[in-house]
Amino acid sequence: MPEGIATSDEITVEELQLAARNHGMPLEGLRYDVTPIGMHYLLTHFDIPEADAATWTLSIGGRVRSPLRVSMAEIAARPAVTMAVTMECAGNGRARLHPRPLSQPWLNEAVGTAEWTGTPLRPLLDEAGLEDDAIEVVFAGADHGTQGGVEQDYERSLPVAEAMRDEVLLAYGINGQPLPPQHGYPLRLIVPGWYGMTSVKWLTTITPVAEPFEGFQMDAYRVRQALEDPGTPVTRMQPRSLMVPPGFPDFFTRIRHVEPGRHTLTGRAWSGWGPIARVEVSIDGGSTWKDATLGQQSSHAWVPWTLTWDAAPGERELMTRATDVAGNVQPVDQPWNHHGVSNNMTQRVTVLVRG
Amino acid sequence: MPEGIATSDEITVEELQLAARNHGMPLEGLRYDVTPIGMHYLLTHFDIPEADAATWTLSIGGRVRSPLRVSMAEIAARPAVTMAVTMECAGNGRARLHPRPLSQPWLNEAVGTAEWTGTPLRPLLDEAGLEDDAIEVVFAGADHGTQGGVEQDYERSLPVAEAMRDEVLLAYGINGQPLPPQHGYPLRLIVPGWYGMTSVKWLTTITPVAEPFEGFQMDAYRVRQALEDPGTPVTRMQPRSLMVPPGFPDFFTRIRHVEPGRHTLTGRAWSGWGPIARVEVSIDGGSTWKDATLGQQSSHAWVPWTLTWDAAPGERELMTRATDVAGNVQPVDQPWNHHGVSNNMTQRVTVLVRG
Repeated sequence: MPEGIATSDEITVEELQLAARNHGMPLEGLRYDVTPIGMHYLLTHFDIPEADAATWTLSIGGRVRSPLRVSMAEIAARPAVTMAVTMECAGNGRARLHPRPLSQPWLNEAVGTAEWTGTPLRPLLDEAGLEDDAIEVVFAGADHGTQGGVEQDYERSLPVAEAMRDEVLLAYGINGQPLPPQHGYPLRLIVPGWYGMTSVKWLTTITPVAEPFEGFQMDAYRVRQALEDPGTPVTRMQPRSLMVPPGFPDFFTRIRHVEPGRHTLTGRAWSGWGPIARVEVSIDGGSTWKDATLGQQSSHAWVPWTLTWDAAPGERELMTRATDVAGNVQPVDQPWNHHGVSNNMTQRVTVLVRG
Repeated sequence: MPEGIATSDEITVEELQLAARNHGMPLEGLRYDVTPIGMHYLLTHFDIPEADAATWTLSIGGRVRSPLRVSMAEIAARPAVTMAVTMECAGNGRARLHPRPLSQPWLNEAVGTAEWTGTPLRPLLDEAGLEDDAIEVVFAGADHGTQGGVEQDYERSLPVAEAMRDEVLLAYGINGQPLPPQHGYPLRLIVPGWYGMTSVKWLTTITPVAEPFEGFQMDAYRVRQALEDPGTPVTRMQPRSLMVPPGFPDFFTRIRHVEPGRHTLTGRAWSGWGPIARVEVSIDGGSTWKDATLGQQSSHAWVPWTLTWDAAPGERELMTRATDVAGNVQPVDQPWNHHGVSNNMTQRVTVLVRG
């Protein structure tokens, strides 16, 4: 196997170390419009930093005419916006790939929708005054470590046009309360529509640059077939639909037990490429599909869906997949990539309908 | 291998499914006296139930003279107590056993300290009036599923004398806010000193009984060498000390990098059997031990400790272990048991001190 790829379908202790500290959203959490505090997925590359809002400063430098340095009190005094945003980890689904890229071993559950409160980024960048040659904006967090042999603060860039979108926030609140440490206290970036690696936590500096930023985390989030391929960058979330697993689970296997008869299947779907056009559900392992009924779409949060299911006794494999208005559809068979990013294969839920 | 025991040091997909939904407290969270919301460890046997405080009722029946049925409004109107309690999963450390019992694969991090708000249980039991023949009290939660082939609501019992302890709470708040769904909203039991399986979430009924309760979860939490052994019940937390891993981590291996020179190592220790008498730290893989300085002890929460370490270049294995006033001490080599419960082996942290 090439470097960074598992040699077995079983999980290594290194992956378990990550899975024990990071966590997904238990899929019954799909029942909530806004994911309750503590249930939203969480991925921390390094350690959760110790931070104090009273002394925290955000610096804007680089290719700007007037470098700025602002305190949390100054950020809190600026116009505030609250916005429901669905965020998904770019590695969601990684542990379902064969062979399995070695990193945080997500199955389906690395997602959540929070109501983020913060101040729009654009007016701050306007105050700093971007130089004409600025093409990207680099965001740096306070979390520090090594990855792939490179010591680093966590850093990611956005093209200037993306960073200047009205809905990009500097967030200090989640679900009506201050950010807890693990979600980026006291300040983080929120970039609706993009995978979570873009929404840099524990934000310390914002640096417009005149050259493409080539930091480690830009290279780590690319869809490529081999380490030596240039690949393409991971950006917006691919469409995905997930259902609330019906019935009740077995503790260890998580196989579901369902009573026969009429059930309302429910779930949520989202895409970073635009509204969801269609959600389909299969109750026979993908042989046939039915269209679910979509609820109301909002700008940056998942859309709910429902489908009535008349459950006949026996073992069933339920599946759901989404199509967005841009025409992207979830694959039933996931194309493989070396880092296991930007996967969006169709969900499968094994259910035993009682006789 | 006997049933329920892993045949490989690698982790199965079933265990990963559990690790992706449940989560530990990242060990840097040991820096906080009270674990921030969302960082406390969490184990849910089945699904997180849908619940509404407006219609929730708690029923007290069985061997009582006056069965009671109370609403959440009635519980909230009773005397309220707020108490910091350290809670640990009985399976903490399970994934470090060889061979590994198949269940939630915890390493070291299944712990947290919360400030729980609720009303003491005892006055409610007094109002209901225990019959003289009541020897245990059974607590049932709303979470439902199958485990070991047995369909069940999650149920655990306590001896009457334990249930009547002043500090046993019916809790509806955590860290100054309502319980989030995953921590037992709207009502749960809190039993300070005992492992977490005792603190039943989503509490629906309390039933004093005249015979020992033999529900599935009583059998699941026993220290035994084989499934057919009677074994002994898991009750109070064994002593454990954990350190905040010093320096910064590598993303994948979690090995720590530390600068040479003077560091203050910090951590927390606790025991369900009484105050902590001693915390020891080794910087040489257990060859020699130094006593850490203990901070102030509180009744039911972990005690902080510190030790100055003069770090010389090279690879080091740091360890810490606690001894409680009852004389229980953490083992360096963990005795094995079939369910992987009540483990408290000494923590080991691999550190690279730079040259």
